Amino acid sequence: MKKIEHIGIAVNDIENSNKLFHALFNAPPYKQEVVVSENVITSFFACGENKIELLQGTSPESAISKFIEKRGEGIHHIAFAVDDIVAEIKRLKSEGFELIHHEPKAGADNKIIAFLHPISTNGVLIELCQDKPE
Amino acid sequence: MKKIEHIGIAVNDIENSNKLFHALFNAPPYKQEVVVSENVITSFFACGENKIELLQGTSPESAISKFIEKRGEGIHHIAFAVDDIVAEIKRLKSEGFELIHHEPKAGADNKIIAFLHPISTNGVLIELCQDKPE
Repeated sequence: MKKIEHIGIAVNDIENSNKLFHALFNAPPYKQEVVVSENVITSFFACGENKIELLQGTSPESAISKFIEKRGEGIHHIAFAVDDIVAEIKRLKSEGFELIHHEPKAGADNKIIAFLHPISTNGVLIELCQDKPE
Repeated sequence: MKKIEHIGIAVNDIENSNKLFHALFNAPPYKQEVVVSENVITSFFACGENKIELLQGTSPESAISKFIEKRGEGIHHIAFAVDDIVAEIKRLKSEGFELIHHEPKAGADNKIIAFLHPISTNGVLIELCQDKPE
């Protein structure tokens, strides 16, 4: 794990939250992206080498909408940057961690990603992410 | 905001969680610290320039114990590093954010800190922290 790549925050209204985080960071989001496969709209704020990703569900079926219904708005996941996601998945499985994705899949922001199940990580939803190979 | 200084994670049993995060990061905590004034035991893991802080309450009165009783184990707060915490508190107040601490106070890990109220930040408990001036 090289660094915290980003923290994902579940929000009800991304336009309102963009204003709020713009005021917090004193800078606007550097990117907005719709991830159709996940039914989410995202926006990204830079904070040094780290990022904050806001996520709003676009359908009641999206994981983000379900999360907010259950827990309210707030921190949804932590993503750690890794150099070799396949090797890291293998290592974590051998350590006994439960993976939601056993193979990397495409994520937002030009990454390949995999999530660990929070049941094996103290209730914290953890994402591994690696820059998409060219 | 220069970077994510750390993410605070509320845990029930810090010894067990130290083992879990040791396996996750493939490295042990670099520091453990009791913060008597906050009724917490903490341990810190390095992740590049960022840190993960585990927090276990030492009394039912601690904010961490109350958080776990209400929400279960999981991410408790995000801390952002700032150069001048007094100026940042002033700026955020002028932007309409609600501060829990209007003046910086001593925190763990040789920092001076101040928390924003999650009511004004999409349910996210945010800490500002600056290295303690010598």
